[in-house]
Amino acid sequence: MTNIPDSSNPFPENVDQVFTHCRVATMAKGNYGIMENAALAVSGKTIAWVGPMDALPETFETIQVTDCRNHWILPGFVDCHTHLVWAGSRAREFEMRLAGVSYAEIAKAGGGIVSTVKATRAAAEDTLFDLASRRMSHLLTQGITTVEIKSGYGLDLESELKMLAVAGRLNKACPQHVTATFLGAHAIPLEFSGRADAYIKEVIEVMLPRVKAQGIATAVDAFCETIAFFREQIRQVFEKAKDLGFAVKLHAEQLSDSGGTALAAEMGALSCDHLEYLSVDGAEKMAEHGTVAVLLPGAFYYLKETKVPPVAVFRQLDIPMAVATDLNPGSSPVLSMTPVLNMACLLFGLTCEEALAGATLHGAAALGLADCKGSLEPGKDADFVIWDVDTPADLCYLTGITPLKQVVIQGKTAYPQG
Amino acid sequence: MTNIPDSSNPFPENVDQVFTHCRVATMAKGNYGIMENAALAVSGKTIAWVGPMDALPETFETIQVTDCRNHWILPGFVDCHTHLVWAGSRAREFEMRLAGVSYAEIAKAGGGIVSTVKATRAAAEDTLFDLASRRMSHLLTQGITTVEIKSGYGLDLESELKMLAVAGRLNKACPQHVTATFLGAHAIPLEFSGRADAYIKEVIEVMLPRVKAQGIATAVDAFCETIAFFREQIRQVFEKAKDLGFAVKLHAEQLSDSGGTALAAEMGALSCDHLEYLSVDGAEKMAEHGTVAVLLPGAFYYLKETKVPPVAVFRQLDIPMAVATDLNPGSSPVLSMTPVLNMACLLFGLTCEEALAGATLHGAAALGLADCKGSLEPGKDADFVIWDVDTPADLCYLTGITPLKQVVIQGKTAYPQG
Repeated sequence: MTNIPDSSNPFPENVDQVFTHCRVATMAKGNYGIMENAALAVSGKTIAWVGPMDALPETFETIQVTDCRNHWILPGFVDCHTHLVWAGSRAREFEMRLAGVSYAEIAKAGGGIVSTVKATRAAAEDTLFDLASRRMSHLLTQGITTVEIKSGYGLDLESELKMLAVAGRLNKACPQHVTATFLGAHAIPLEFSGRADAYIKEVIEVMLPRVKAQGIATAVDAFCETIAFFREQIRQVFEKAKDLGFAVKLHAEQLSDSGGTALAAEMGALSCDHLEYLSVDGAEKMAEHGTVAVLLPGAFYYLKETKVPPVAVFRQLDIPMAVATDLNPGSSPVLSMTPVLNMACLLFGLTCEEALAGATLHGAAALGLADCKGSLEPGKDADFVIWDVDTPADLCYLTGITPLKQVVIQGKTAYPQG
Repeated sequence: MTNIPDSSNPFPENVDQVFTHCRVATMAKGNYGIMENAALAVSGKTIAWVGPMDALPETFETIQVTDCRNHWILPGFVDCHTHLVWAGSRAREFEMRLAGVSYAEIAKAGGGIVSTVKATRAAAEDTLFDLASRRMSHLLTQGITTVEIKSGYGLDLESELKMLAVAGRLNKACPQHVTATFLGAHAIPLEFSGRADAYIKEVIEVMLPRVKAQGIATAVDAFCETIAFFREQIRQVFEKAKDLGFAVKLHAEQLSDSGGTALAAEMGALSCDHLEYLSVDGAEKMAEHGTVAVLLPGAFYYLKETKVPPVAVFRQLDIPMAVATDLNPGSSPVLSMTPVLNMACLLFGLTCEEALAGATLHGAAALGLADCKGSLEPGKDADFVIWDVDTPADLCYLTGITPLKQVVIQGKTAYPQG
């Protein structure tokens, strides 16, 4: 190999693969970081080098070369908020609502989250795994290379462990990296109706230690809302979670300003998610503690919300904004990141660059993975997507098409399969 | 062949293909028309029979059998309103608007429809064809089997004829049925700025006769709006168009109540399209004259409109509602029908059944093709899609996935290619 001298960014040794003739948006520091007429080199599972074509060695000997034909390379999408493991369908409920059936009648007929909990409890682990791995396979075709998966449709020890076991199996079986989050405090299960404190006690004393003992989740999430749990209940869950060494994160300020965000930020949460009703005070707490704001425009759209999260405040306070699918059967049956980028732009007013940073670097930060995922920088995992688009903005602008050519995860081509 | 006797719906002779073990939503009369445990028989290019599995003959001799494994069959989508032929990209304009650049500044920088007209005029016919056929190929993967394509980015004789020639070539080259609509009166071209009447004269005296002479369009469309043309100008265009034997249709009441719909209905228009600002009077005229209402939620969504079309009035007056992509680079870069179904439901309040009827039977009616397209009835074209969904409502409910197994057009499998 003959390196053309470029002392500032020399082509490294130990490169296995190089992707040539591409345009790269590195998304480093959350900016496009555009390099035209570029190349990207991979060593093992990590990115070894990103630089201009004319800094490449003149010949490659043992390196596998992929000519990207001027397509764009962006980091793989990091979907930092999903409820991907569930059984049952809510399509008929969606249809009933459109036909004018009220929420109350649907709930009476066993609809809503209760129906998902019932179906998920009843499903065998293998069934849940099959359903979930089909979803994972589809997300791969959409350029999603890292997926956070929450429990929270079990709401009893056995069913919560079952969901987390499925997430663990997906991590092994699918090319994507999966992080599992325990969301026992998602809703009050029917059998604890009117006894939320008793359920929280169960989460803290029974579930959390078992989840910890099995080592099947890295983070603990909860839902702070009038229809779910109060701040004080969240605090108890988080205190125990932190004692056990879990990271924490929170569904907060989605339907009302319950003050959960300030609490979570003060307790060192990785992220607070939804945030439509967040106050400036709450945002200031996030800025102070480095909490990531996870925006979920899919749920906003499906629930016909009108209050948008305080994007201008996030910008002013330099709070990183992640965006995620919130994939779930009730409020966000969204199986792709590009529609989420589009909604983040059109419904929440993010710029294309902000939306793309939200689905990559800041998504990684919301999972505590910003050191290894979310941008194309030497040393990070070689997780990236080759897109047949004119400009990265196309990924936000277009609807109904995902013009993806190739997905690489930790240096291996994950899609299309060879 | 041994037919099991079923005098009401006997299995016919001359069947070439039968699709067995399916669930069918025929969409006949705009209703689901659901048949479970059904089969669909094709003879040549047309549907020969739809009926219960147990009415099938016991053995088939020369018939090709496809086992649908309990998947759903619905009519192919009829996309009755597109501007599919264009050159140039508006992604950067989309991005600029999100970054806070005003419409006026974008227009000053040559953006907006002007930029599409410029690029389309400059593009060679073969270039336009290549760009457009890529879009057609994608629409096929989305279950769209009939596509209306409008001119209207040429705005001079040569360029309008070029666009319509491309539409004609697409009709021959692509599996889908294409209908071409002349939309010379789409916008006032720059060179006629301030001289709209002179441009209308050009449309009427020069363009319409040439389009007719070349036989490359079946319908004439126009844009009645304060930013485009007035009622009286539309009337002149339509009178000439009707004299020449064209069907007519109108972009009407999108941004204001200009009264175009009443005029178009009285003149026998096939459809009026957009209709956000339609008055009850206008709707009554549509009902009186059998005009189809074409709803375009993609444009509503991208333009952040807040006034929705009067769906309750359409229902009350029994006006058929079609839905279409409005595929165009400015206000609706939407390359699939399922997101349009979703927006029709969530943004306009259609039921799933209404949305699906809008994308099938009523879409066909908006093109004057209801006798041969849009529902699964014996004698109609064998244009249908096999979907891997639990219920037709899934096509409206899900985002980011198009769970399509097979597309058949006039009896031939068009996707996936064998």
